Amino acid sequence: MTLKSLGLITVAAICLAAAVVPALVAGQPGRASPIYGVTVPEGYRQWQMIGVAEEAEPLNELRAVLGNATAIDAYRTKQLPFPDGTVLVKLAWKRVQSTEFEPASVPSAATTVQVMVKDANKYAATGGWGFGRFVNGEPVDEAQHQTCFACHQARVSGHDYVFTRYAP
Amino acid sequence: MTLKSLGLITVAAICLAAAVVPALVAGQPGRASPIYGVTVPEGYRQWQMIGVAEEAEPLNELRAVLGNATAIDAYRTKQLPFPDGTVLVKLAWKRVQSTEFEPASVPSAATTVQVMVKDANKYAATGGWGFGRFVNGEPVDEAQHQTCFACHQARVSGHDYVFTRYAP
Repeated sequence: MTLKSLGLITVAAICLAAAVVPALVAGQPGRASPIYGVTVPEGYRQWQMIGVAEEAEPLNELRAVLGNATAIDAYRTKQLPFPDGTVLVKLAWKRVQSTEFEPASVPSAATTVQVMVKDANKYAATGGWGFGRFVNGEPVDEAQHQTCFACHQARVSGHDYVFTRYAP
Repeated sequence: MTLKSLGLITVAAICLAAAVVPALVAGQPGRASPIYGVTVPEGYRQWQMIGVAEEAEPLNELRAVLGNATAIDAYRTKQLPFPDGTVLVKLAWKRVQSTEFEPASVPSAATTVQVMVKDANKYAATGGWGFGRFVNGEPVDEAQHQTCFACHQARVSGHDYVFTRYAP
């Protein structure tokens, strides 16, 4: 082996490491949701905001829904149904009164991260959507996942089973 | 004038139009805030989300705070004070009960857009921050803008005069 080939191997190893390490560190692929096999998407916290919400007691939460580029484009161009590849992520936090400005309430501890993934073929039995509900990055049990679609179907079938609208 | 030069002029005109039109359409530069000369930044609705909040009666609003790349980087790396070039935009909407899921309340009409711009030299008299409060894209009056810094100074001087924290 020449020095040059050793150098090339070193460069290749560095490139491989650079390609692999982010997947191991930032990816945190975590476990997939039961029934649907949905995971928490990498980098979702950098996605654009679709809307926000408040959830009354007993949950008492503030929420924000972020979307990947496909989702954002679909909302902006009012596409219904949402195209395959749409991913929506709802972040939720306990709602607490601000100690700095009394009329305001603000996010406290994160509670759940909830994900919807559109794939009309894969999830044909549930309106084209796969669901994932995660607490501390881990999916909740199958029983909880069995409630997702029934509620979306009963309440927002006219909006392709999605509650959240785009907040102007 | 030759056909070729005419073609070049046409291309130049198209390029000029392409460069100018977005500024006229999406830019909507609008009027600047009194005292500070702050405007609503172009493209802010595509910025990343920092956090959300609820404001009690009488305002009864849901809010989201978005930040430009400088702001997001400062929050992620816990930089205080925020660096020059930080821009924060708070969007606010009337809060209404969801008609589709009763425990939830969701955004209705947009009310105000509020902007903070960091420039330590330009705004030295107000903690390095310029303020803008806009209704329907138009800045509110000078009297309202005179209240901004006093409140931020009284309540969050220990967080570089910024209320909003990064929601995980």
